[in-house]
Amino acid sequence: MRAEIISVGTELLLGQIVDTNAAYIARELAELGIDIFFKQTVGDNPGRIQDAVRLAMSRADAIIMTGGLGPTEDDLTVEAVAAALGEELVHNQEVAVHIKRFFETRGRVPPDSVFKQALVPRTAQVIPNARGTAPGVHFDRDGHMIFMMPGVPFEMDGMMRDYVLPHLRERTTGAVIRSVVLRVTGEGESAVEARIKDLIRGTSPTVAPYAKLGEVHLRVTAKGSPEEVAGQLSRGVALVRERLGELVYGTDSETLEDVVAGMLTSKRLTIAVAESCTGGLLAQRLTNVPGSSAYFVEGVVAYSNDAKVDVVGVDPGLIETHGAVSAPVAEAMAEGIRARVRTDLGVSITGVAGPSGGTAEKPVGLVFIGLTSSRGVLHRRLAFGSEPGRQGIRHLASQAALNLIRLQLLRA
Amino acid sequence: MRAEIISVGTELLLGQIVDTNAAYIARELAELGIDIFFKQTVGDNPGRIQDAVRLAMSRADAIIMTGGLGPTEDDLTVEAVAAALGEELVHNQEVAVHIKRFFETRGRVPPDSVFKQALVPRTAQVIPNARGTAPGVHFDRDGHMIFMMPGVPFEMDGMMRDYVLPHLRERTTGAVIRSVVLRVTGEGESAVEARIKDLIRGTSPTVAPYAKLGEVHLRVTAKGSPEEVAGQLSRGVALVRERLGELVYGTDSETLEDVVAGMLTSKRLTIAVAESCTGGLLAQRLTNVPGSSAYFVEGVVAYSNDAKVDVVGVDPGLIETHGAVSAPVAEAMAEGIRARVRTDLGVSITGVAGPSGGTAEKPVGLVFIGLTSSRGVLHRRLAFGSEPGRQGIRHLASQAALNLIRLQLLRA
Repeated sequence: MRAEIISVGTELLLGQIVDTNAAYIARELAELGIDIFFKQTVGDNPGRIQDAVRLAMSRADAIIMTGGLGPTEDDLTVEAVAAALGEELVHNQEVAVHIKRFFETRGRVPPDSVFKQALVPRTAQVIPNARGTAPGVHFDRDGHMIFMMPGVPFEMDGMMRDYVLPHLRERTTGAVIRSVVLRVTGEGESAVEARIKDLIRGTSPTVAPYAKLGEVHLRVTAKGSPEEVAGQLSRGVALVRERLGELVYGTDSETLEDVVAGMLTSKRLTIAVAESCTGGLLAQRLTNVPGSSAYFVEGVVAYSNDAKVDVVGVDPGLIETHGAVSAPVAEAMAEGIRARVRTDLGVSITGVAGPSGGTAEKPVGLVFIGLTSSRGVLHRRLAFGSEPGRQGIRHLASQAALNLIRLQLLRA
Repeated sequence: MRAEIISVGTELLLGQIVDTNAAYIARELAELGIDIFFKQTVGDNPGRIQDAVRLAMSRADAIIMTGGLGPTEDDLTVEAVAAALGEELVHNQEVAVHIKRFFETRGRVPPDSVFKQALVPRTAQVIPNARGTAPGVHFDRDGHMIFMMPGVPFEMDGMMRDYVLPHLRERTTGAVIRSVVLRVTGEGESAVEARIKDLIRGTSPTVAPYAKLGEVHLRVTAKGSPEEVAGQLSRGVALVRERLGELVYGTDSETLEDVVAGMLTSKRLTIAVAESCTGGLLAQRLTNVPGSSAYFVEGVVAYSNDAKVDVVGVDPGLIETHGAVSAPVAEAMAEGIRARVRTDLGVSITGVAGPSGGTAEKPVGLVFIGLTSSRGVLHRRLAFGSEPGRQGIRHLASQAALNLIRLQLLRA
């Protein structure tokens, strides 16, 4: 089966919004093994919507349209497609009742304009919209399936899951495309690629690297029967893990903070952090995970030297001798916060996030991370350079600190 | 002039990446007043790339293509388009030298595969790529301009700015589309819309609201000659500002933290923060702005009750009587951190971010913000509900705190 996506909306052609709907629909169709050869984007214009639908019907079995289904005068999709197919629009009482109820349960009176959405093509099926007022529309015509959904992602998403995907699943042959993402941190993209070059060239499964800031995602993808796919994926994942070892920190949507949080929780360890250049980002990432009060006790953003001395207990002589951005100060910050708060781990970050404040000796992007536990204290020196920018350097520093915690916990 | 965008890449049709390039290009063309009626997305397949180009040539004057210009076997765009136009590919010595130098300055040896990119159509112009190895290609054929650029956003962006946009600008009539975004916080979308309903219905300029988490962006857009546009925009912006007053905190890409940072810096005021449920997010946002050491002195993430007592100096009796999530504790946290650090402002956040930990009396989403200065202490109670989720509640709480600081500074 071949499908084609048509996104309708002048705001898309003006670049005012990014078309995330199309990417979501494409992923869901790929999951069913349905090929997509083309995607079209067209403005709120009846003639051009009709051109797009006719073209799609000439080359696809299923046509998935989003956008232009609302109550305003710009919403022309259903009207245009009905006209292209020689269909009359008729009032649908069920939809009208749904719209009325939708407003009533929210304590609001529906404006007249909204009932325009109760006009649907005579022979079409209505796709229920549990999350909004605009119904979707489903046509079967000359062997083609045409689905029209609203552009609001939250509403479209519900219709895809509850109606469109079940309909398509019935018609597919059973071949599926499925992916697993392995998340890697601690080495750059080219170093990671070099270790798995032959796997990247492979075809079944395929391995595709995507560089992110401070990590690399490796997408392992297989296509075939559900059983073939499961076998290929577990083989591919095992091969990558064998090559990369501890560099792989997680899978799919798991974040580095999720993994660290899980390790701290299961080992019943507590942590406190003292940050300078990251300004609270490490604390924020560590507490982004539900249940973080089990392990996170306290964080200090010791931005000024006074704060490093007063709250974290750094010896002012150390700052004077080595500078605030130095290995001894990083270690002292980690030890100071751990000693005061009495946690299992103490972690610190001090560095130059820029854009100003760099010197020849301490350039922008230079960061020291300190980590202390009952097994002693250690530090890491990282030089990110100025290129990632202030927010990039801050993110990379927090990423390196989280990874240092992870590697320490792997051995604890 | 009419333009059409063609995005090439199977990864787009599989939904593995979202097409942000197309949105960027569309915005830049709109800025020049160039109409886009269609956008196509096509996979890495020569026949289908040719179909897409032929279709675009039948209805557009300028065709902007991205993707499929790299060194791998999947990169077929130039070859396919050249074949569609009956063009031969020839070796371009200038490009080969550029590729060699690009690798050399990075201390690397170019692999042979990369020199495939030096094959360009005989009559085409090469678009220099200062940021990568794949050159862009520019054809003029039968009154159509065709531009091909790599899909890597960083490289595409440079070519658009330095080559494609200047070329298109020369050919346009002078009508432009331009927008200003007014950024609003402190009231919900429907309340904001109600105040400017008539402006939203207007046509010249148009005002379009976009709801974001914790803020609303109002895009004011005008089309016409540069002078007309400037007049319409300043009139539109003034009208919206008149209606919304202090709710408008900034324009275009200015963030709330940018605005607060600017006010603190220009008033030479210092700030310290004590956070609980936001876990460092407020400190992180306040220090996201370059030069933040001028005003930000210290932050504490006092996650446990002990930390609230020990580091922020909250009376344990207050926590016992009112609970950690309460107005008195919020005020005591703000006063405690300000007194210890001796800053002009002290700000605190305490709340229930969830998903667990809520009670009937203190449900998930309940947040108290404290603010103290030489003019006394105050608090705000906010009930976000559980719907925004943990990260949403944390963001909304930090947003409300920043806005409270902003409003206080407006009066200071």
